Amino acid sequence: MDLDAVHHKFDVEKHVLNRIRPDAKTRKKVDAVVNELTSRLNAVITKWHLQAKVLLVGSCARDTYLRDSRDIDLFVLFPEDMPRQELEELGIKLGMEVMNGELRYAEHPYVHGTYRGFEVDIVPCYEIRDPEKKKSAVDRTPFHNQYVITHLKEEQKDEVRLLKRFLKGLGIYGAEAAVQGFSGYLCELLIIKYGSFRKVLESAWNWRANLYIWLEKEPGAKFNDPLIFIDPVDSNRNVASAVSVDALSHFIVAAGAYLKKPGIEFFFPKEKNLAMNIAREKLARYIHNAGTALIMVSASRPEKTEDIIAPQLKKMERVLVQNLSIAGFRVMRSFSFMLKRKMVVCIELESRTLTSMYLHAGPNVWIRNSEDFLKKYSNAGNVLIPPFISSGRWVVGLKRNYTDACKYLKENIGAWNIGKDLANQKITVYTAGAVKSVAELNQILQHLMPRFPWEAVHK
Amino acid sequence: MDLDAVHHKFDVEKHVLNRIRPDAKTRKKVDAVVNELTSRLNAVITKWHLQAKVLLVGSCARDTYLRDSRDIDLFVLFPEDMPRQELEELGIKLGMEVMNGELRYAEHPYVHGTYRGFEVDIVPCYEIRDPEKKKSAVDRTPFHNQYVITHLKEEQKDEVRLLKRFLKGLGIYGAEAAVQGFSGYLCELLIIKYGSFRKVLESAWNWRANLYIWLEKEPGAKFNDPLIFIDPVDSNRNVASAVSVDALSHFIVAAGAYLKKPGIEFFFPKEKNLAMNIAREKLARYIHNAGTALIMVSASRPEKTEDIIAPQLKKMERVLVQNLSIAGFRVMRSFSFMLKRKMVVCIELESRTLTSMYLHAGPNVWIRNSEDFLKKYSNAGNVLIPPFISSGRWVVGLKRNYTDACKYLKENIGAWNIGKDLANQKITVYTAGAVKSVAELNQILQHLMPRFPWEAVHK
Repeated sequence: MDLDAVHHKFDVEKHVLNRIRPDAKTRKKVDAVVNELTSRLNAVITKWHLQAKVLLVGSCARDTYLRDSRDIDLFVLFPEDMPRQELEELGIKLGMEVMNGELRYAEHPYVHGTYRGFEVDIVPCYEIRDPEKKKSAVDRTPFHNQYVITHLKEEQKDEVRLLKRFLKGLGIYGAEAAVQGFSGYLCELLIIKYGSFRKVLESAWNWRANLYIWLEKEPGAKFNDPLIFIDPVDSNRNVASAVSVDALSHFIVAAGAYLKKPGIEFFFPKEKNLAMNIAREKLARYIHNAGTALIMVSASRPEKTEDIIAPQLKKMERVLVQNLSIAGFRVMRSFSFMLKRKMVVCIELESRTLTSMYLHAGPNVWIRNSEDFLKKYSNAGNVLIPPFISSGRWVVGLKRNYTDACKYLKENIGAWNIGKDLANQKITVYTAGAVKSVAELNQILQHLMPRFPWEAVHK
Repeated sequence: MDLDAVHHKFDVEKHVLNRIRPDAKTRKKVDAVVNELTSRLNAVITKWHLQAKVLLVGSCARDTYLRDSRDIDLFVLFPEDMPRQELEELGIKLGMEVMNGELRYAEHPYVHGTYRGFEVDIVPCYEIRDPEKKKSAVDRTPFHNQYVITHLKEEQKDEVRLLKRFLKGLGIYGAEAAVQGFSGYLCELLIIKYGSFRKVLESAWNWRANLYIWLEKEPGAKFNDPLIFIDPVDSNRNVASAVSVDALSHFIVAAGAYLKKPGIEFFFPKEKNLAMNIAREKLARYIHNAGTALIMVSASRPEKTEDIIAPQLKKMERVLVQNLSIAGFRVMRSFSFMLKRKMVVCIELESRTLTSMYLHAGPNVWIRNSEDFLKKYSNAGNVLIPPFISSGRWVVGLKRNYTDACKYLKENIGAWNIGKDLANQKITVYTAGAVKSVAELNQILQHLMPRFPWEAVHK
C-alpha cells in the first residue's frame, strides 16, 4: 500500500491505530510488569507494617497508552495525617526497595527507575477525600485516574490514542518544559468532552486563544493561559496550563489541515533531516538570499534532566536577545534547541555589525536637570557629536562600546545571569560557517524555514 | 580692543549697540525715504480722490530698527465699507504708482519693491475700530503699531535692538517659514513685558514649552504652540505662533549661556564655514567615525520666494523620511537647507543597505481571515520563508523590493507627492563623496555636528 496516497480519514486512522494500539504481546508485557511491581510494593508495605495503598495511574491504568509507550506510573497513597517528611521518606524508601531507582524532584520527591525495559515512576502521595484540598502537588492524580476510568468509554480509548499520536506528530505531546504541549490527561479529557478524535479536531479548528473549556465543573478562577481546560476534579486548576500559544496554534492549524486532507504524515511526519552537504548548501543559500546574520551561542549540555535544563535554555535565549537589543542590535528571530552534547541558542540579526555612532536623547532643554546631561556628555570620551538640540530635546551622538555582535557576546556573556546550570558550561559563540554537526545544521534549518510536520521539506 | 575677551555684560552690550544702533546718517536716509514715499502716496491719494490714509508701521515707525535694516513697511488704510476687491485693486495700483514694485501675496496681496536701496512693502488694509473684528489678515497691524508706540519707552528701543540682534545671531529672528523664529513685534512685546533685554533672557531661562505670556489681555483661547504670547490687541491671537520648538529651545539655551558668560559672539557669531579641503576631510572623518550613511536628495531651486519654497522643502524632507522608513530603512536624522541654486535634503541612515529578507507578521492563526493571508503568501514570488507560526501569529519571510536606499529613492521619488514647485525641478540623489560645493559641504557639516552660534567650530 502506498501510504502517501492514503487520505481517506477512515483508512488513515485505521492504519495509524494498527500501528499504535498495543498488541497482545505488549499488553501482556505491560500487565506482567505492573503486576510484578504492585506485588513487590504491597509485599514491602506488609513487611514494613505500613498503612498504604498502591495505585496504578496514568495511561496504563486507563488503557490509553501507545504501543511504544514505556511509562508506568505507580502511586503509593498514605494516610492524610502522616507528617509530610515521613511520607516523603517512606515513599522514597519503598520505591528504592522494589527497583534500582534514583531520587527525582518535581514539586515533590519521587523515585524513577528502569524496570524490565519500562520507565517507572513510584510516587508517594496523600490519600485525600477532596481533591480541591490537596496536601501535596500530586494528591489529585488518583482523582484524575478515577475520573477518566469512570468517564472514558471503551471505544474512546483508541480515540485518545489517535489524539496522542497526532500531537506527537506535531511535537506538542507532553506538558514538560521542553515541549509545553498537551498532557495525556488533557488528551483523555478532550476525548471525554468532544466524544472522538475527529470531533476534537473539528472543535479545535474553531478555538481561539484564552478559550475556556470545561466538563461538569465550571471555571473556579480566571486564567491567563492560551488554552484553559478546567480540571473536572478541581475547578481552580487549568489542566492545559502548560500549553504554549505556539503549541495551541500548531494544534489549531494542524486540525484544520487534517480535516481538509487527512494523511498518515500528520501522525508519522516525514523525515526532515537533510544530509550534511545538502543541509550546508541550503543554509548558505538561505543566508545569501535573506542577507541576515546568524549567530550561534552554545553551551555544553549539563548532566541534568531535560525538565531542569529546558527552561534554562529558554532563559539563556531571552537574556541574549535582551542584551543584544539593549546594545542596539536588531534581533529578527531567535530560537534554541538541545543536541546530545550541547544546547544552542541561535539568533538571527539584521546585521552582525552596527554603526559606530548612535544618537542618545536626553531631557527637554527647559528641564532643569538637563544641566546634568550636558555635564555628563560635554567631554566624555565616547562623545562623537556634542549635545545639540533636536525637537526641543538635548541629543548627543555617542560611540558604541561594541559594533560587532559576536565580540559583544563573547566579551560579555560571562557577566549575564543565564541559567545556573549553564553558566558553568563551556560557552562558544560562532557563525553559520562554523556549524560542523549535521544534527545542528538540520535543527537550524528547521527553525529558520519551518515546515509543518505533515509537509514535505524542500531540499 | 580684543573683542574675544569682552565678557562683561555692559561692555558687550555697549559694543553691540554701537554696531547696531542706527547712526545719524542712517536715520537721515531712512527718514528721507519714508517721507518721500509717504508724500508720493498722499499725492496719488489726493489726485485719485481716494478716502485713504498712509501709515508707517514696522520697526521704522517704532524706531526699533537695526542699523543695517533695509525694510520699510507702509500701510494704506481704506474705509471699512469698501468692497474687498476694490480695496485690493486700489491698494495694488497705488503701490505700483509710487514705486517700481511687484505684486506679492501673503494672506493678502501687497506691493513689494526696492526703493533707493530699501525693501519697501506697500500694503492695503481696512481701517477698523476693533482689532478683534478684523476684515483682512493685516488689519491688526496698525493696532500693533499703536500699541508699541504707546507702551515702549524711549530707553527700551535699544533693548529691542539688542534682543533682535541676539536672535539674529541665533538664526531665529523672523517669523517666516524658513526661520520659524521671533518676529520684530514679538521682540518689542517681550521688552515691554519684561523691561529690558537682560530681563527677557532671565525670564526665558525659566521658560518651558507651551508657556503662556500676556500683557493686559488674558488668553482668549487655548494654543498648542511651543511659545504663546497673547497679542495685547487680540486675545485670540498668539504673536509667537511661528516660533518652532527648536527656535524656542535655542533661545532658552542661549539665554542661559549668555547670562553665565556674555559675549559679542552671541550677537555676531564666529564664522563657521571651513575651506573646501578642510570641510571635505572633516566630512570624510565624520562618516568614518560614525559609520552611518549620508544620502542627499537635491532639487534645483525654483524661482519663487523663500516663504513659498521653504515649506515645500520641509515637506519633501518629511516625505522622503516617511517613505524610507516605510521601506524599512532606519533614518537616524534628516535635515534640509537651501543654497543659491538648489535645495538639499540630507538623510542620515544607519545603513544604506538592508537585509533582503524581512519578516511580515499576519493575523493570529485562530482568526478566520488568516486563510487570506496564507493564500496571499503561499506561492507569491517574493516569499523567502513560507508562512510559519510565531507567538500565535502567522509570519512570512518576504524579499524586499529595494535593499539600496539610493536606488529606492531614484526609482520612486517621481511618484511621491513632494512640494508642487519642487516636483518639476531636476532631482538628484547622491552620497557624501559627490558633494562638490563648499557651501553645501559646510551646510552638511553644520547640521551633522551642530555647534551653537556662540561656540567656536572645530576643524
